[in-house]
Amino acid sequence: MSVKRRVTIALIAEQAGVSVPTVSKVVNGRPEVAPDTRRRVERLLHEHGYRRRTGQGDGPVGLVDLVFAEIESPWAMEIIRGAETAAREAEAAVVVSVLHTHSGPGRDWLDRIAARRTDGVVLVASRLTRRQHGQLLARSIPFVIVDPEGEPAPDVASVGATNWHGGLAATRHLLELGHRRIGMIGGPPEMLCSRARIDGYRAALETAGVPVDPGLIRYGDFLVNSGHLYGKEFLELPDPPTAIFAGSDLQAFGVFEAARRAGLRVPDDLSVVGFDDLPLARSAWPPLTTVRQPLEEMAALATRMALDISRGETPETRRVELATDLLIRDSTTAPRR
Amino acid sequence: MSVKRRVTIALIAEQAGVSVPTVSKVVNGRPEVAPDTRRRVERLLHEHGYRRRTGQGDGPVGLVDLVFAEIESPWAMEIIRGAETAAREAEAAVVVSVLHTHSGPGRDWLDRIAARRTDGVVLVASRLTRRQHGQLLARSIPFVIVDPEGEPAPDVASVGATNWHGGLAATRHLLELGHRRIGMIGGPPEMLCSRARIDGYRAALETAGVPVDPGLIRYGDFLVNSGHLYGKEFLELPDPPTAIFAGSDLQAFGVFEAARRAGLRVPDDLSVVGFDDLPLARSAWPPLTTVRQPLEEMAALATRMALDISRGETPETRRVELATDLLIRDSTTAPRR
Repeated sequence: MSVKRRVTIALIAEQAGVSVPTVSKVVNGRPEVAPDTRRRVERLLHEHGYRRRTGQGDGPVGLVDLVFAEIESPWAMEIIRGAETAAREAEAAVVVSVLHTHSGPGRDWLDRIAARRTDGVVLVASRLTRRQHGQLLARSIPFVIVDPEGEPAPDVASVGATNWHGGLAATRHLLELGHRRIGMIGGPPEMLCSRARIDGYRAALETAGVPVDPGLIRYGDFLVNSGHLYGKEFLELPDPPTAIFAGSDLQAFGVFEAARRAGLRVPDDLSVVGFDDLPLARSAWPPLTTVRQPLEEMAALATRMALDISRGETPETRRVELATDLLIRDSTTAPRR
Repeated sequence: MSVKRRVTIALIAEQAGVSVPTVSKVVNGRPEVAPDTRRRVERLLHEHGYRRRTGQGDGPVGLVDLVFAEIESPWAMEIIRGAETAAREAEAAVVVSVLHTHSGPGRDWLDRIAARRTDGVVLVASRLTRRQHGQLLARSIPFVIVDPEGEPAPDVASVGATNWHGGLAATRHLLELGHRRIGMIGGPPEMLCSRARIDGYRAALETAGVPVDPGLIRYGDFLVNSGHLYGKEFLELPDPPTAIFAGSDLQAFGVFEAARRAGLRVPDDLSVVGFDDLPLARSAWPPLTTVRQPLEEMAALATRMALDISRGETPETRRVELATDLLIRDSTTAPRR
């Protein structure tokens, strides 16, 4: 009968050839450890699946960290609102941080979090390298990714929306109205949610027997300006599209602007579909036909999952996608031509 | 020579006729104290100006609490961004809470904050009663109000914008273009920032010798719908205004909508000025003439003030107003009539 040794700090210290206090410092995010030593200890903590013991003074702290790559769009507001509501219901509060990079949290941030303590981390639209993943695990910090930027590792919990279905539904709606030349403005190509929306667009065209024209696909960021820029480019084509599917509501507002500057009316001269259903989509002029993704619910679910994991519970599903819905308002109609 | 006794928990306990641990529980936000006792202890703590001693385990926790009454508008995004930047520069992080009431933080919230600990609280657009003020002081929690809803007590630190000047500048701009019938849509009458904007509007009219028509002043909330609603009411008057000054950018977007539904073009048939300069004001159609208030800077300053107070520093000024600027874009022009 094999006896499995319990993973303790002492065991890790022994295998790493360092003292117990040194391992303890790494686990607690204290700075005074040499980089090489730190990496060796982190690798061992990760390999052994070390979990910080819950003991004296180590109970929940009542904080969930909500970590954005950027907060440029009112999109982030919906995420904050959902996370705040879910945290409050669990008698916790939300700490909001902005990394100003899409390449995931750096070591400084991780050390600060470990030193201050948190019950869990919700990462929004961030990439997470295997190494960052390992650093979070080594510090026993539960985390969930909302709207993952790349493909998350199979053991990483994440919450997204059915982006592919949303792209499919938006494009089918335009096809059913009679549009055949449909421009697509996506987000950054490395963002999974954007790729899925574009693939849904392609699938709708292909299943309808409409050839995909690569000249009608652009990749921007998700903000107003890229909608304006690529909308303008599309409208200046010799054979411009009669409809544009924008990968975000803000891009759709940019397309509205491009259309107005070109003297075209939406939807009479150009149909426009957005994605997100921000509160402003309803009050835009014309009210925007868009694909709703339940941003508040996504953030609330991710927050609850992070808190569940922190209490030692295992989420039923690690990868959750909430449904998107096409909301038909007044920015789409049949093409004139 | 009179000897002033140092204010200790023992002194408070003696005067309140309770035990030292009971006072300690009140100070630390623990729940197991009878309401009457708690009130008596809080009053004494406040009267004696008790401050929690800074000792072992009582240093900064690296958290600033940013507390909203509501987060319905992209306005809140600017505040969060400013607070997050200032906190990060001070190696702290921002906890975002939403009270869902304008009547200030309740006891539950205060107790949770005291139990979890915070370096300071930034209250956004909230009222604060003398009692809530006393409760924060009794718990030695430094706080600063951004955009105070009512008149803050003289010893309360607050950061606002020069709302009166902003209202004056917006209205003068419309008067200079030749408008004489100018509608004003304000925020809730109990909100100080809204009253100041309306008073600036009145002052501009009066100094120009244009009589103030009370029928051209409405009080809404600061969201899109009230702009739409009162914009519509104004446009249906027998002698409608040729220009509308909206108390927020979102209201101005609502006025845009009301104008479009009435078949009027902005600015040719109706000039519109907003207030805030949200990022969407630039990309609106037409780009919105608006009064910029430096929301990010206001929140950043309030956050730095709260952290300064927590380190025992006294802010140079307790009441700060940052300048507003009129930004003339394309939603205003001379009246036709």
